[in-house]
Amino acid sequence: MKGLSFLASAARDGDPVAAPEAIAPFAADLEQLEAYLRDRSGIGFDILAGLLESVFDAGGKRIRPALVFAVGRLADGMGEEGRRRRADYPDDAIMRLAAAIETLHTATLVHDDLVDGAETRRGRPTLHGRWGVGATILAGDWLFARASAFSASTGAVRVVQLFAQTLEALTDGELRQLFGRRGLPTREEYELRIYGKTASLFETATESAAVLIGAAPEQVRDLSRFGRSLGMAFQIIDDLLDFTSDEATLGKPVGSDLRSGQMTLPTLLYLEARPAEDPWAKGQAAAADIERLVAAIGVDEAVIARSRAAAEAHLADALAGLDGFAPGPARDLLAAIARYAITRDR
Amino acid sequence: MKGLSFLASAARDGDPVAAPEAIAPFAADLEQLEAYLRDRSGIGFDILAGLLESVFDAGGKRIRPALVFAVGRLADGMGEEGRRRRADYPDDAIMRLAAAIETLHTATLVHDDLVDGAETRRGRPTLHGRWGVGATILAGDWLFARASAFSASTGAVRVVQLFAQTLEALTDGELRQLFGRRGLPTREEYELRIYGKTASLFETATESAAVLIGAAPEQVRDLSRFGRSLGMAFQIIDDLLDFTSDEATLGKPVGSDLRSGQMTLPTLLYLEARPAEDPWAKGQAAAADIERLVAAIGVDEAVIARSRAAAEAHLADALAGLDGFAPGPARDLLAAIARYAITRDR
Repeated sequence: MKGLSFLASAARDGDPVAAPEAIAPFAADLEQLEAYLRDRSGIGFDILAGLLESVFDAGGKRIRPALVFAVGRLADGMGEEGRRRRADYPDDAIMRLAAAIETLHTATLVHDDLVDGAETRRGRPTLHGRWGVGATILAGDWLFARASAFSASTGAVRVVQLFAQTLEALTDGELRQLFGRRGLPTREEYELRIYGKTASLFETATESAAVLIGAAPEQVRDLSRFGRSLGMAFQIIDDLLDFTSDEATLGKPVGSDLRSGQMTLPTLLYLEARPAEDPWAKGQAAAADIERLVAAIGVDEAVIARSRAAAEAHLADALAGLDGFAPGPARDLLAAIARYAITRDR
Repeated sequence: MKGLSFLASAARDGDPVAAPEAIAPFAADLEQLEAYLRDRSGIGFDILAGLLESVFDAGGKRIRPALVFAVGRLADGMGEEGRRRRADYPDDAIMRLAAAIETLHTATLVHDDLVDGAETRRGRPTLHGRWGVGATILAGDWLFARASAFSASTGAVRVVQLFAQTLEALTDGELRQLFGRRGLPTREEYELRIYGKTASLFETATESAAVLIGAAPEQVRDLSRFGRSLGMAFQIIDDLLDFTSDEATLGKPVGSDLRSGQMTLPTLLYLEARPAEDPWAKGQAAAADIERLVAAIGVDEAVIARSRAAAEAHLADALAGLDGFAPGPARDLLAAIARYAITRDR
C-alpha cells in the first residue's frame, strides 16, 4: 500500500501511484471534484486563482470527500421516499458537498499551520512561509467563504447549519488545545479535542451526505454516528503515527505533536504509567527529555497496542452505524474506507 | 451629536450618551441584540465566553444592525403576499439576521487588525496585543462560525448564500488592498476595494432583511441597491474622516490609512492634481513627507468638497432605491440612517 497521495497531483509529479483500495472506487468522482475545487469562475483577482492552485496542489488523502461519495452511493437504496426528498436539491448536490467539505478542511489547515507556526505541510513550505502572515489569514478566510458558498449551493439549510456547527467545533477544539490546562490532559479532554479537531468534520460529511440523498431521519442519525466515530478512530491513528512512522512517510518530523507541547493519547497512556518521566512536570521541558520521550513512546508495544485498541473501539462503533443499511456494494465501500482509516501507514 | 458609542456599553461605563437620532429609534431592538450577540448557551469553554464579552464590549456604531431593524419595520407594508412569504422563517428572523451581520462584521475587524498590525481599535488594545496571533486567528474564525450559525438559523438559504458571497467579497477586498498594484489606485480600483471592504456587507444586511420580511423580488432588488450605495457613501466618509477628524474623536491617529500605505479617495483626488507630491513616487516614502501629505489633505477644501460630493452621489442613489416604497415612518427611518451615515463626525 504505497501511494496515498492524491491521484491528480501524483500524476502531475510524473510519478503515478495507486490510490489505496478504499479510495480507488471514487477515482472518477475525485477527478471531477478537482474541477469544483479549482473552479475560477467568479474570481476576478489573479492572486486568488493562484492561491487555489497552490493549496490544492499540495494534495492530501481526500478521505473526507471519498466518504461523501460513498454515502452518495447509498442513494439508490433510499426508495421512493428518498427520491422525493432528494428532489429538493440540485443533481450534483453530493459533488458540491464534497467540494464544501474539502475546502473547509483546507481552510482550517491554512490557519492551523499559522497558529502552530508550522514551516512545512506534507513536505512543502506552508503558505505563510511564502506569503506572509496577513495574506495567509485572509487566504484562509477566503477559503472559509468558498466552503460556505459550496455548502449553501446544496440548497439544504440543514447542511449549512451543520457546517456552521462544525466550524465552531473546529475552532473550539483548536482554542482548547492552545489555552487548555497545561500538563497531561484527561482521557475526556483528549476525546473532546479530537472530536473538535477531526471527528466533527467527518460527522458533518456523512450526516450532510445522508440528508442530500434523502435518507430517513434514523438513517441520517446512523450515518452521523458512522462519520463521528470514524473521525475519532482516524485522529487516534494520526496521533499514533506521529510516533511510530518516519519523516519520509509523514512529510514532517516524527514527534511533532509532543515537541509543540501537544499531548495526545500515546503520551497520555505512556505517562499515566510513568509520571516521573513527564518532561513538563517541573515547568519548562528540556529538549533532550522530549526527544527521549518521543523515542520511548514510538517503541512502547503496550502503548501502541492500547492506542490501536482505542481506535478499533471507535471503528467498531462506526461500523455498527452501518448495521441498519442493506448489505451490498455501497455499504461495503463505506466499511472499506473505515478500515483503511485505521490500517493506513500515514 | 456626541455619543455614537453603543448604548449598553456606554451605560456600563457610567457615562450614558445619547445615540444619534437615526439610531435611537432602534434602542430597544439594539438592547435585545446584545443578548443574542453575547449568548453563551452552547459555549462549554470559558475563554470563548470571555472573548464574546471583550469583542462586543468594544462597542461600535451598530449601524449595520440598525439598518436590518429599519428594513424590518417595512414588513407591515408587504401585504398578504409578504405575510405568506414570511411564514417560512422564524418570528425572530430579523433579530437573528442582525446578530449574524454584526458578528460577521466583528469577525472581520478581529482579523483585519491582525493583518494591518493595528495596536488599538476604538482606543482599546486589539485582541492580538492581549492574546497573541494564534488565538486571535482562531477567535476570528470562531466568530465567523457564529455568524454563519446565526445566518443559517434564519432558515433562508438565500440569506446564507448572501453571507458566503459577502465573506468572499470582504476577503477579496482585503487581499486586493494587500497585493494590489502599488501606487495611486484608479478611481475604479478604489471603488472595487470599498465595495469589497464595506458596501458588500451593507448590501447583504438590507437585501437579507428584505428577503426575511417577505418583500417582492423588485423590492428586494431596491433594498439591495439602497444598502450597497449607502455602504459606498459610508466608506468614503470614513476615508475622509481619517484626514479631517481628530485622534480623540476617531479613537486612532489621524492619517492612519496613508501611513500604512493605503491610498483612499482624498489622497487620490489630491495627488491626481499634484503628482510631484506623491511620497511613494520614487519607491520608499520618507515619514516626514507622509506627515506633510496627511496635513495638506486634511485642510484641502477642494479635496474635502469633492470627496463629500462623491459620497453624496452614492447617497442619492441609495435614497432612489427607496422610491418604490410607500412614504411613511418606516421609509423615513431608513432615509435617516442613510443621511446620518454621511453627516457623522466619526
